[in-house]
Amino acid sequence: MSISKVLTQIDEDFSNSTDRLFELLRIESISTDSNYDAECEKAADWLVSELSDIGFKASKRATLGHPMVIAHSDGPGSKIMFYGHYDVQPVDPLDLWDNPPFEPSIEDTKNGKVIRARGAADDKGQLMTFVEACRAWIKVNGKLPVKTSIFFEGEEESGSPSLVPFMEANTEELKSDIALICDTGLFGEETPGIVTMLRGLVKIEVEITGPSRDLHSGMYGGISINPIRVLNKILAGLHDEDGKITLSGFYDGVPELPQNISDQWDNLSFDHLNFLNEVDLTKPAGEADRTPLEMIWSRPTCDVNGIYGGYQGEGFKTVLPSKATAKISFRLVGDQDPKQILKSLKQYIASCLPPDCSVKFIEETPSKATQMSTSNAAFEKARQALSDEWPKEATFVGCGGSIPIAGHFKDILNTDSMLIGFGKDDDKIHSPNEKYDLSSFHKGIRSWARILDKISED
Amino acid sequence: MSISKVLTQIDEDFSNSTDRLFELLRIESISTDSNYDAECEKAADWLVSELSDIGFKASKRATLGHPMVIAHSDGPGSKIMFYGHYDVQPVDPLDLWDNPPFEPSIEDTKNGKVIRARGAADDKGQLMTFVEACRAWIKVNGKLPVKTSIFFEGEEESGSPSLVPFMEANTEELKSDIALICDTGLFGEETPGIVTMLRGLVKIEVEITGPSRDLHSGMYGGISINPIRVLNKILAGLHDEDGKITLSGFYDGVPELPQNISDQWDNLSFDHLNFLNEVDLTKPAGEADRTPLEMIWSRPTCDVNGIYGGYQGEGFKTVLPSKATAKISFRLVGDQDPKQILKSLKQYIASCLPPDCSVKFIEETPSKATQMSTSNAAFEKARQALSDEWPKEATFVGCGGSIPIAGHFKDILNTDSMLIGFGKDDDKIHSPNEKYDLSSFHKGIRSWARILDKISED
Repeated sequence: MSISKVLTQIDEDFSNSTDRLFELLRIESISTDSNYDAECEKAADWLVSELSDIGFKASKRATLGHPMVIAHSDGPGSKIMFYGHYDVQPVDPLDLWDNPPFEPSIEDTKNGKVIRARGAADDKGQLMTFVEACRAWIKVNGKLPVKTSIFFEGEEESGSPSLVPFMEANTEELKSDIALICDTGLFGEETPGIVTMLRGLVKIEVEITGPSRDLHSGMYGGISINPIRVLNKILAGLHDEDGKITLSGFYDGVPELPQNISDQWDNLSFDHLNFLNEVDLTKPAGEADRTPLEMIWSRPTCDVNGIYGGYQGEGFKTVLPSKATAKISFRLVGDQDPKQILKSLKQYIASCLPPDCSVKFIEETPSKATQMSTSNAAFEKARQALSDEWPKEATFVGCGGSIPIAGHFKDILNTDSMLIGFGKDDDKIHSPNEKYDLSSFHKGIRSWARILDKISED
Repeated sequence: MSISKVLTQIDEDFSNSTDRLFELLRIESISTDSNYDAECEKAADWLVSELSDIGFKASKRATLGHPMVIAHSDGPGSKIMFYGHYDVQPVDPLDLWDNPPFEPSIEDTKNGKVIRARGAADDKGQLMTFVEACRAWIKVNGKLPVKTSIFFEGEEESGSPSLVPFMEANTEELKSDIALICDTGLFGEETPGIVTMLRGLVKIEVEITGPSRDLHSGMYGGISINPIRVLNKILAGLHDEDGKITLSGFYDGVPELPQNISDQWDNLSFDHLNFLNEVDLTKPAGEADRTPLEMIWSRPTCDVNGIYGGYQGEGFKTVLPSKATAKISFRLVGDQDPKQILKSLKQYIASCLPPDCSVKFIEETPSKATQMSTSNAAFEKARQALSDEWPKEATFVGCGGSIPIAGHFKDILNTDSMLIGFGKDDDKIHSPNEKYDLSSFHKGIRSWARILDKISED
């Protein structure tokens, strides 16, 4: 049977697979900062070259932002599409990294070997699991068992401005029977999950301006409006005492969890104390009347991701600043309407704004929440394949993160998505010292080989 | 009469006076940032050299921080002490400066010529008015008309940590009949003021820590406490709807304004709309039931001078930060007790702190408010001298800023202080594009010559 030969090939070639991943991790493809534009191009070029070597027909496709990488490989039967992103998060604060973020290394930890680098888990390590699975499969069998396309973007960490226009312009080329998205994690240490529920995301920057320049608080203190104080008041009013979000109409379209899903989640025996202790916390801080899994998977949130204004250096400066800024994001669920939420936020801020203050907004394209339909047979086949590879039975789960691509595959291409990934809770994605377990990388490659095998069965 | 010869000498030598001030302005003596320590030393050395050239016995005196400059010149009769500071504020945001902050220039503006540079008004330009007055007086008369000491410090913008220990260790050397402090402004355009009321200052940095590292809001959003939100809530609770500060006991020791002072201030016909319009504001934003002059001179304040936490770069990063920090300051009046206010603030913050959050404080030595006794005859003599030089009669005024040295002269040396300065409301001290009117510098030098003359009369 071909699958065992493919798995053997994966095991024998694994140190080369790791070397190739390291090449990709050395490229500083930070998409949010225009200083790194050339590095994003370099990452795309590297992927085109690798995929061509394996046997894909691969090309870099220009957009108004960072390029897409598209690759196709012909085969029998149904067509699958694999999605990942080659861009990474910024690395600040740099001084909290133990090693330079773009010099990957393998480290021994108490939980085994890990690959340490920015992007190791989010998403370069994950996307390379599929690339390496295809490489091994083609090496053993000459070609893949199904028609396979690959779709890598370079703007996932910066709001994906080119994604929808590109998909709309290339619908026929991208359509497939199922999409595979590798940007999520295992449930706990050993349980592979297939995500069927994803939160949406709304991001908005709010800048309050008071006086036309920074003032000396000795001269103007007491008579001048202070935009930091105005911003504090606005932000403090976004939640009530029970952690509920106060914006008008915010909970419109938020469903209660169906009983069958609620039962499945109870069976997962999620150890929320362990999850919180990992980062020195002990108490769930969300809505008072919700379970920990609801807080992170099925309830909407509002958070301030960044705030700044006035003097931030060493020592003190008794300044009354001209401006204060907050970066705010909302995680959405069910049928919550991003447009309505942005409108409600702006109305609320306008109602709080004192005389002599103005407000400026910067937004990114928002995404609605996504709910997968698991009736496609590929879901159960993938669940079986994953259960063969991992110690515990695979299960359908939720995900607190926002992976808008799944919604776009459904809306634009009418394609269902399976979100399967091998990250762990302690991977520190978006933080200093990001890592990806070496076992996640290895078993991830093996998992995709098994999924290709199962999906190609009648 | 010697004074007219001195004034002529000042006028004839004025362009050289300006050149000398430019030399001092080119030294980047930012005291709040340890990267500029060598520049602070350089400024002290430059002053010692200048004062020695004029005829003072001048020396640089080491402290645990930046050095003091002390200079003495013998003479008949009473002894005066002049105080100024050679350190300057940080220059950020640097991109808002039209010219480099340490490359002084003379610019033509619609209101006349100005000297543009960091420190031009605060306090290098001001302290040099006295130095140049002494230079001219000695040039004409061979020596000063009274015993004169000069006391320059280099830590005024960073909380003056060495000041009190230095004064306590050198009491006999520093004692004098009156202290002259040049770090304040004219009232309006043409009315010189002698400040008799100064607000105190309390500065404290508050750092809130939640999770032990930055988190991804997709994974932890909804269940993790967010220290920015905690900080917002704390800061938003510091003022009530009427602009009153809510800390327990905060207004203990805050006096109502005596009728005679209130009447004097009414006579000043302060144009608060003009004052606010200068920075594009229109409405006094302090306590609802107070006059504009009370807000800036005789009422206490609480302000956030800086805030930061989470992602502050270009674009968005959906991070839940580990820490959030605010720099808070209070301006105090009357008998308000700084220690009690700090205690009350800490108790309030402790009462707001949710589970899993901790708080860290960094404080600078606070100062109480100061009220001068104007019974010393020097006050009236200086008022007459100033009235001779300026278009309008000089008057006794309040000052919203905090110049703790005046309190220390009283407490440690038992010496009254006269605060006389030539700054203007639009000098942009502590802001980008700081300036000092060339006429302030010129007439400031002439003012000190006249004051030396009057004070030396019986």
